[in-house]
Amino acid sequence: MTERVVLAYSGGLDTSVAIGWIAEATGAEVVAVAVDVGQGGEDMNVIRQRALDCGAVEAYVADARDEFAAEYCMPALRANGMYLDRYPLVSAISRPVIVKHMVRAAREFGASTVAHGCTGKGNDQVRFEVATTSLAPDLKSIAPVRDLALTREKAIDYAEKHDLPIATTKKNPFSIDQNVWGRAVETGFLEDIWNEPTKDVYSYTDDPTFPPVADEVILTFEQGIPVAIDGVPVTPLQAIQEMNRRAGAQGVGRIDIVEDRLVGIKSREIYEAPGAIALITAHQELENVTIEREQARFKRQVEQRWSELVYDGMWFSPLKKSLDVFVDDTQKYVSGEIRMVLHGGRATVTGRRSEQSLYDFNLATYDEGDAFDQSQARGFIEIYGLTAKLAAARDEKFGNGVDLGAKANLTAGAL
Amino acid sequence: MTERVVLAYSGGLDTSVAIGWIAEATGAEVVAVAVDVGQGGEDMNVIRQRALDCGAVEAYVADARDEFAAEYCMPALRANGMYLDRYPLVSAISRPVIVKHMVRAAREFGASTVAHGCTGKGNDQVRFEVATTSLAPDLKSIAPVRDLALTREKAIDYAEKHDLPIATTKKNPFSIDQNVWGRAVETGFLEDIWNEPTKDVYSYTDDPTFPPVADEVILTFEQGIPVAIDGVPVTPLQAIQEMNRRAGAQGVGRIDIVEDRLVGIKSREIYEAPGAIALITAHQELENVTIEREQARFKRQVEQRWSELVYDGMWFSPLKKSLDVFVDDTQKYVSGEIRMVLHGGRATVTGRRSEQSLYDFNLATYDEGDAFDQSQARGFIEIYGLTAKLAAARDEKFGNGVDLGAKANLTAGAL
Amino acid sequence: MTERVVLAYSGGLDTSVAIGWIAEATGAEVVAVAVDVGQGGEDMNVIRQRALDCGAVEAYVADARDEFAAEYCMPALRANGMYLDRYPLVSAISRPVIVKHMVRAAREFGASTVAHGCTGKGNDQVRFEVATTSLAPDLKSIAPVRDLALTREKAIDYAEKHDLPIATTKKNPFSIDQNVWGRAVETGFLEDIWNEPTKDVYSYTDDPTFPPVADEVILTFEQGIPVAIDGVPVTPLQAIQEMNRRAGAQGVGRIDIVEDRLVGIKSREIYEAPGAIALITAHQELENVTIEREQARFKRQVEQRWSELVYDGMWFSPLKKSLDVFVDDTQKYVSGEIRMVLHGGRATVTGRRSEQSLYDFNLATYDEGDAFDQSQARGFIEIYGLTAKLAAARDEKFGNGVDLGAKANLTAGAL
Amino acid sequence: MTERVVLAYSGGLDTSVAIGWIAEATGAEVVAVAVDVGQGGEDMNVIRQRALDCGAVEAYVADARDEFAAEYCMPALRANGMYLDRYPLVSAISRPVIVKHMVRAAREFGASTVAHGCTGKGNDQVRFEVATTSLAPDLKSIAPVRDLALTREKAIDYAEKHDLPIATTKKNPFSIDQNVWGRAVETGFLEDIWNEPTKDVYSYTDDPTFPPVADEVILTFEQGIPVAIDGVPVTPLQAIQEMNRRAGAQGVGRIDIVEDRLVGIKSREIYEAPGAIALITAHQELENVTIEREQARFKRQVEQRWSELVYDGMWFSPLKKSLDVFVDDTQKYVSGEIRMVLHGGRATVTGRRSEQSLYDFNLATYDEGDAFDQSQARGFIEIYGLTAKLAAARDEKFGNGVDLGAKANLTAGAL
Repeated sequence: MTERVVLAYSGGLDTSVAIGWIAEATGAEVVAVAVDVGQGGEDMNVIRQRALDCGAVEAYVADARDEFAAEYCMPALRANGMYLDRYPLVSAISRPVIVKHMVRAAREFGASTVAHGCTGKGNDQVRFEVATTSLAPDLKSIAPVRDLALTREKAIDYAEKHDLPIATTKKNPFSIDQNVWGRAVETGFLEDIWNEPTKDVYSYTDDPTFPPVADEVILTFEQGIPVAIDGVPVTPLQAIQEMNRRAGAQGVGRIDIVEDRLVGIKSREIYEAPGAIALITAHQELENVTIEREQARFKRQVEQRWSELVYDGMWFSPLKKSLDVFVDDTQKYVSGEIRMVLHGGRATVTGRRSEQSLYDFNLATYDEGDAFDQSQARGFIEIYGLTAKLAAARDEKFGNGVDLGAKANLTAGAL
Repeated sequence: MTERVVLAYSGGLDTSVAIGWIAEATGAEVVAVAVDVGQGGEDMNVIRQRALDCGAVEAYVADARDEFAAEYCMPALRANGMYLDRYPLVSAISRPVIVKHMVRAAREFGASTVAHGCTGKGNDQVRFEVATTSLAPDLKSIAPVRDLALTREKAIDYAEKHDLPIATTKKNPFSIDQNVWGRAVETGFLEDIWNEPTKDVYSYTDDPTFPPVADEVILTFEQGIPVAIDGVPVTPLQAIQEMNRRAGAQGVGRIDIVEDRLVGIKSREIYEAPGAIALITAHQELENVTIEREQARFKRQVEQRWSELVYDGMWFSPLKKSLDVFVDDTQKYVSGEIRMVLHGGRATVTGRRSEQSLYDFNLATYDEGDAFDQSQARGFIEIYGLTAKLAAARDEKFGNGVDLGAKANLTAGAL
Repeated sequence: MTERVVLAYSGGLDTSVAIGWIAEATGAEVVAVAVDVGQGGEDMNVIRQRALDCGAVEAYVADARDEFAAEYCMPALRANGMYLDRYPLVSAISRPVIVKHMVRAAREFGASTVAHGCTGKGNDQVRFEVATTSLAPDLKSIAPVRDLALTREKAIDYAEKHDLPIATTKKNPFSIDQNVWGRAVETGFLEDIWNEPTKDVYSYTDDPTFPPVADEVILTFEQGIPVAIDGVPVTPLQAIQEMNRRAGAQGVGRIDIVEDRLVGIKSREIYEAPGAIALITAHQELENVTIEREQARFKRQVEQRWSELVYDGMWFSPLKKSLDVFVDDTQKYVSGEIRMVLHGGRATVTGRRSEQSLYDFNLATYDEGDAFDQSQARGFIEIYGLTAKLAAARDEKFGNGVDLGAKANLTAGAL
Repeated sequence: MTERVVLAYSGGLDTSVAIGWIAEATGAEVVAVAVDVGQGGEDMNVIRQRALDCGAVEAYVADARDEFAAEYCMPALRANGMYLDRYPLVSAISRPVIVKHMVRAAREFGASTVAHGCTGKGNDQVRFEVATTSLAPDLKSIAPVRDLALTREKAIDYAEKHDLPIATTKKNPFSIDQNVWGRAVETGFLEDIWNEPTKDVYSYTDDPTFPPVADEVILTFEQGIPVAIDGVPVTPLQAIQEMNRRAGAQGVGRIDIVEDRLVGIKSREIYEAPGAIALITAHQELENVTIEREQARFKRQVEQRWSELVYDGMWFSPLKKSLDVFVDDTQKYVSGEIRMVLHGGRATVTGRRSEQSLYDFNLATYDEGDAFDQSQARGFIEIYGLTAKLAAARDEKFGNGVDLGAKANLTAGAL
């Protein structure tokens, strides 16, 4: 029986050519897989037909938008997932769901290998292949660009020679990946990290320099998940889409960063994630109101590790799963409403209310009704500061006390 | 010999009354200490005279602005010090420098006790007293408001009865603390956390809604410290002041947050820190360019702990000092220039360059000159993903594999 | 209606006197609560009767040994809970279960206050009171020794004067707390930390200096819980008891440590925990065999925080619960057998086997059958070491490279 | 000019053959480098001559024992460096010092490549090559066994055919690496992880089952470094050697563990590190006495990361260096004496004393002289437990309170 290869198919030039290229290089039949994660662009049925026209023996397409929003974006939101505290893991969380469908297709169509169009120096090759091996340790991975020497120039030649139904226009100045959680742009003149991004880099967001009038929104969360916007119930997908639209119109969520890739190099990336940034901002503040202090402090460490793991391609790893159960446990009371103003690139929380709030007006207030017993403070401070005090006394004993500066009657003379 | 108490003196009603109040309650002489940390307001010599007029036996005033900027704000900048990833520790870092001067005054004037005007439910009482015990374990602390029942009403009565040279106007709607690193506002109607801040809350920043034209600035850092702005050399103090002015004019650095106090309650705080936020933003991106990945990842954990410690009043503690030496070691190469656009509440990095950069164009580029050997990737991924692969194989063996969803020919039917 | 106080009652002099002492000091009725957590000593019914004879209006006794073993010791085992990596939290985990029964008694008998016999400088007062407030925020706490001035001398006087049915012998040289998970000894001549413990300090363990012949044991775990010993099924309680017996006979589990109390002082403690130490040792090695590397690495951080929290009295806190779900998730495959030799103070793992093992002979072996593809290593090392390499090149560029030492022809001359 | 390769030379069969093998395979001249890190065995001058006899153009030998002890073992001791909390990094810390000498030799003899005898599935290949690239980013690495197909069988054939002055006895049943810090044994029948180690596995330690009489030792530390044993001044090297001798005679420091290699597999290792384990045990307890609590707690996290980094070959990495400065800062007061009994596999601390101690008898004692103000405890506990209390009240409000179990008059009936 002929070997089969499942190929992550975008409908673009490179992967259209890869169908035939893989077949020729390996003798295998190619099954094209296209997954809609909200990247927009062409109709999925058009993409399916093109795959078949380019020589795929089967074409599997899936609308994974709701699945992606609910099972990948929402965990990222609960974890406030941001690599380097800035990047909401746009591509990093889409690879696992795409791979899941590729593996499903591999099982359905009897393939032994999965193929992706990534180069050999990025993160996505790792995410594709480690996700594959984590879902199906028996499947092999190949990457035509990296392993089968499929360059852009060869792709254009091949497409023209074989008359493939795909435009062979010259290369986009940027490398772009997008889905409903955001958009990533790299390469081109951005590789000079002193260069400012030009306006054509952006697509999900309008220029925040000249925004429309401010847009106030009320987000309702239940256990860390947005369930209503301005009182209208929404699914996770709808929440992200609606916030992409509204926050995007205000230029919220543009990110320009030099980041550390898993493969050891630093790269410069531009991201747009208006919905993700607005939702995470609201979610973080609702957590400030509803999560106990020590739980919140440790959750920050968990969030950092979660984000590193997901960035590094370990979505399906044992540690990632254990961190997820930790995060889920913290979200039990992350319910309530956040009022937020979107304007000119800013997503600013202006109010929060929650039945599950740990903010206690009577303890916090300095006005009448103060329920806090201030007489407890002396004992608290004395014991709380005791270890520092004993260490300080030792410092003094051994001449290592803090230098108070030269003794001088500073009260004399002009300041 | 009469006991002496050193009082942290602001020149305002409460601490002016406290001079006499402490004397009456304890029989001690009061030495007033006023420290200029860039809080603005009255001239220090006016404050000194008022202290004496209110009954202080000595008045010690110090211009600690450069000291505060260099020895407190700069370490905070190097550590990207932000509590809850949001609050740049404005009051938290000023308490230690004030206490240092109070202890110095206590030594100079032979005092056995230090006094501060804090209440019994905030963080500052802890910061004052733990800093005191860490610099001078032999000194006692008292707090007239907390320990000697000095209420606002009693203060007004006392001031009027004794004809103190201080206005007894009605209470400011807010409780405010400010210095060159920023400004903190709390209490009043802000205690209802659903309420939006009104315009009168702000002082260091203009409204970002209607900003002037965008302001581009180039910040030069050496080892994590800003040393020039637009090519003009600056001291740490000047760097902060200049960025307060320019970023403040653009409404940068407004923060509205519910935070976890050390004493166990959640409180709502408004901060303004235009200079601090702009400098930290620039510093973080310069670190992205110049710090090695694993060092950067661990530094994030250090930053979180550093910020918690400083927020919690442990500036002079052993752990804080050890974290400082860690941070200092990471700053060896954090030198170079950051170009930043200040506009409408945003401080956006648009360019970075550094002789010490670890960003390597030849490794990062996808164009000609690519020096990255992509053939290494396969081996890397295989070994990197091995533990996840083995765990996945076990999951499958025990029926715990990831559910791929119902098998279905998804290629048929409309999406 | 008369107020009621629930008192943690041990049957000893101090708490026997406290019954009447609390009643006199507060006017409340006292309900005595005695909980069997495996501390041995007198029969619970004898203790119950003594409480009533000493004036308690009600006496609640509970055999909580199985509950303690299953719900407190087993989570501690799964978390390898050891404070300072040494102390298996003997007293720290017993306080929560005792408090749970005290709160139950308070509800059953209509009490508004709980009382415990701890002093004001130890950890246990915090554990009792924070556990109480975490189970029943409405209940108040009092401590007769700390709050009602009940000293040892007064207790003896009181007991003799009121003819209480309790021996008023002179004080034990040590302060002791024990339960099935272990035994803690402090005070007395141990307070001089240069003093070696004398033989009379120990009770759960025989002297390891002159042990009986070595004892080999096979422990079977399922999901981190011991379920059989030498093939004989056991409950958690039985597993601990049996290992206390066998490991105790070999002198395993003696600990002599200076530790950091929550209240800020260092104290010197002797612990005996033969069963706990043997079980944790076996459990850790089974984890080495069955837990994936990154999950194991992060679990160590979780274990440290878990142990600190539990030591610090936060058993019922939100963070502790979230850490528990993390730990539980890691135990899914911690099943299998550990062979261990107990001898002369040592509990030495000598073999391990598990159906769920991640140890793969074919990958590990250097003999025939090696399934590891060594050709992958070069690519792995090149990319794995890339960030260090780039940083090193920078060090060299800026003259900060590692000093290789003086150049010298070391091949000449004698070594 | 002919290329030169610097080869890590042990004097054994494999590396003796590698001299010629590399020369034939690459056309390069081979410079042999042998470094004495306390591994014992043949005289270094014998090894030097053999290298030359086997065809090396130069032979560089160095006595690095003091350097290794002072600059590699002592930092490991200060960091209590133990991978998986068990393994004192025996081989992991020797690779960097060996590589340092190899790079020095490469510079001295004009080599462009370094070679080592490791296989492609262990940690040491990574340690050798990453250390090389970290000291000399321009040098290339090769591994004859891994890259040039030099198998054991081929080595024997080659040695016999070329009449090399080296015994070609049949393979040792184990793979062994040793130095003054310890000894590592793997492979052979140990690869079956259910097998117990046989007596012939051990060399640095005597059987703890039948120990000589107990040996009491007093270790004096200054700033974390052992400076005297039983009052006799020692260098770091002497301290390790002496403790190897004395602790080894008692069977201290045998470790049998399944560990996670960097290359993703689990392997079974036997270690012997009598001196290292005894010194670390003493050092840890001295730290318990002299390091402030929060500093100690964070240091544990640093220790774990330090150990992982060093195990993973990152000795010369930026993060490792920053962790070192953290650790060094914590050792300022780790001075004093530890009394320890070595017996039957146990290294038991029985006393500690230090001028720099933070243990305060007057605070710790329950006898006369108690300086701890117990009245502070109530306020401390109230505020310390406040966040847990508020969270508990919320749990109760939402029906998530801890289940107290069925209400029952437990006072009736038999236990």
